[in-house]
Amino acid sequence: MSPFVAQWQLDPEVDFLNHGAFGACPTAVLAEQDAWRARLEREPVRFMLNELEPALDRARAAVAAFVGVEPRSLVFVGNATAGVNTVLASLPLRAGDEILVTDHGYNACNNAARYWGGRAGANVTVAEVPVPVREPNDVVRAVLAAVTERTRIAIVDHVTSPTGMVFPVAEIVAALRERGVLSLIDGAHAPGMLPLELDALGADYYAANLHKWCCTPKGCAILVARPERHATLRPLVISHGANTRRTDRPKLWLEFDWVGTIEPSAILSAPRALELLAGLLPGGFPALQAHNHELVCYARRLLLDAVGSEPLCPESMLGSLASVTLRDAAQAPGFEASPFCEPLYAELCARRFQALATFWPAAPRRVVRVTAQLYNERAQYQRFAAALAELA
Amino acid sequence: MSPFVAQWQLDPEVDFLNHGAFGACPTAVLAEQDAWRARLEREPVRFMLNELEPALDRARAAVAAFVGVEPRSLVFVGNATAGVNTVLASLPLRAGDEILVTDHGYNACNNAARYWGGRAGANVTVAEVPVPVREPNDVVRAVLAAVTERTRIAIVDHVTSPTGMVFPVAEIVAALRERGVLSLIDGAHAPGMLPLELDALGADYYAANLHKWCCTPKGCAILVARPERHATLRPLVISHGANTRRTDRPKLWLEFDWVGTIEPSAILSAPRALELLAGLLPGGFPALQAHNHELVCYARRLLLDAVGSEPLCPESMLGSLASVTLRDAAQAPGFEASPFCEPLYAELCARRFQALATFWPAAPRRVVRVTAQLYNERAQYQRFAAALAELA
Repeated sequence: MSPFVAQWQLDPEVDFLNHGAFGACPTAVLAEQDAWRARLEREPVRFMLNELEPALDRARAAVAAFVGVEPRSLVFVGNATAGVNTVLASLPLRAGDEILVTDHGYNACNNAARYWGGRAGANVTVAEVPVPVREPNDVVRAVLAAVTERTRIAIVDHVTSPTGMVFPVAEIVAALRERGVLSLIDGAHAPGMLPLELDALGADYYAANLHKWCCTPKGCAILVARPERHATLRPLVISHGANTRRTDRPKLWLEFDWVGTIEPSAILSAPRALELLAGLLPGGFPALQAHNHELVCYARRLLLDAVGSEPLCPESMLGSLASVTLRDAAQAPGFEASPFCEPLYAELCARRFQALATFWPAAPRRVVRVTAQLYNERAQYQRFAAALAELA
Repeated sequence: MSPFVAQWQLDPEVDFLNHGAFGACPTAVLAEQDAWRARLEREPVRFMLNELEPALDRARAAVAAFVGVEPRSLVFVGNATAGVNTVLASLPLRAGDEILVTDHGYNACNNAARYWGGRAGANVTVAEVPVPVREPNDVVRAVLAAVTERTRIAIVDHVTSPTGMVFPVAEIVAALRERGVLSLIDGAHAPGMLPLELDALGADYYAANLHKWCCTPKGCAILVARPERHATLRPLVISHGANTRRTDRPKLWLEFDWVGTIEPSAILSAPRALELLAGLLPGGFPALQAHNHELVCYARRLLLDAVGSEPLCPESMLGSLASVTLRDAAQAPGFEASPFCEPLYAELCARRFQALATFWPAAPRRVVRVTAQLYNERAQYQRFAAALAELA
């Protein structure tokens, strides 16, 4: 058993190979959250009115340093999907505009694009990125091939959810900018999995979860915007910040830091989560990321052997999450809000494995995805590959 | 000291007279929240995919019964302001439409009306409800006097925030419906403070917090809509529910129950909070509400004497929250996102009182507001009135 299992609260009876879905929060970080909540409940008004802003600023400073961005460009949101919706709702779209997504994109965000685009009469177009991807440039070419003179914004995953590959977002962002197209990077899985330098990346907008690979409690995510986008970026929940006369803080913070009463303890625990993860291996985050990457590459090799399928991308395009497609051309089960629709998922659960088993309409194939986090070990993937060979 | 102090975690050094701002959560309810969070962290995927929906449904059933509405018409949102934004964002407004608010309305919600209305070219109009209000019908008349043929929706507080009075929402909703105007009742303070029968009330939309007078953890609020409004009501965060083919649950639930990953433990603790509050006095919630009402009426009499001001409304229009205006015509300090702008607030804090002290632009007067909850006792208001007489 991994010596790091004791840091988390995960059920020891389950081979938990889906850190990518909702993360998992270490015990020490949950204790930090408890401390914040206790402080809040001791004097809720003093906390919310006097103590929350400085506490948010400390959390923002720590997170901003971690993802390589100026704090003034970073706000907290509930989750990455909320961040993507926020950007789309704020965008002055016009009838006939196009929002570009890829066929590796996240269903929820594609829905958001159709909804907010549809309100303005804008259309959603889909860039097809055929698999297997041989090299990162395949993705750049596929995205750019779908850009038209009507393309207003492109939503591109940093790490794709169904197919588990790291897209070359630096090249994509630069090429989009050359063409006058805004970039919205959905980094739902990226912070903690990949080193980030968001100011250098220069995406117009970057939305990301911290509850996944930074292991914060649920309810902690970020939205980053280039300075020239701040003026038009508005939260989905308009509150007191909209007409404040305060000038002591950036307007972006005044609006996003108060979206009605929320429970802020997950956000405020982010610095502790970063500190904890950085301290688990002698080499800090780089060592953690290398460990998880090597482990998931190992896992993918086992799974590809087990199901007799080809890799969707080279190992150099993996982070700590990898998908394999099953060879059968399964009947599309109809996309559901949860993977319940995929009987394979239920069968894996029954055998005490937790891994993503879903249907990827673009293939169209069933997809099985596993993740690697410090609490995992090779034997878990060996057991899983054996089960998958039997079931799939 | 009130025998109920031990149920809460409030700082014993502070006279906490502002339950209305953010509520306060009893220790037993926080323990329930801990249990939900522990269950989530033991197997996050199983919890989110297999256990969350039935748990939400149990919470929804308990809350729906408490507020007197069919569960199918109730969804959870983060807070009442988010609920108001949700309704406004969903509404098919047209250029020239009018959104009616009152001058007792909540600044954040007025901002939301201006923002979402402004996107559609709709205008916000303000019904003036002059104080003192002599009888509930004064409010009905004032609201109806501001309705025009362009009025599409009226946002009316059930319990007003700056002025702390209970508006006659049943009469207002009925009169608006006769005139073809939609009603959005902002019940931020209502559940737990007032008996609610929302199906009988028949408002088109009703948004309310449970973290205030139902004493849940922060992050628990509801949005209720009449059945004929369900089809057009969409969450601010569009996610998987938008294109689900599931038919086993109402579409409203499928969209609102999954708005990306949230920490649901506050919502799931609502049944425990209701059960706890119902059990604190032999007469249950009616006894609790009567106790708090009597206590706040007592407090208001003391405060009116202390500042030499007239009541804003009869005691029959109070719940468990009451405001008094100060007699000075203070310079408008400029509305801020927090009451920091009001020096009186800081002075009260320094003397270890926690009460709302703000500026009500409609008067224009400074306003001091106190609340009464079971953990309060008469001596606290006596001390507060003495301090206020000295300071104000």
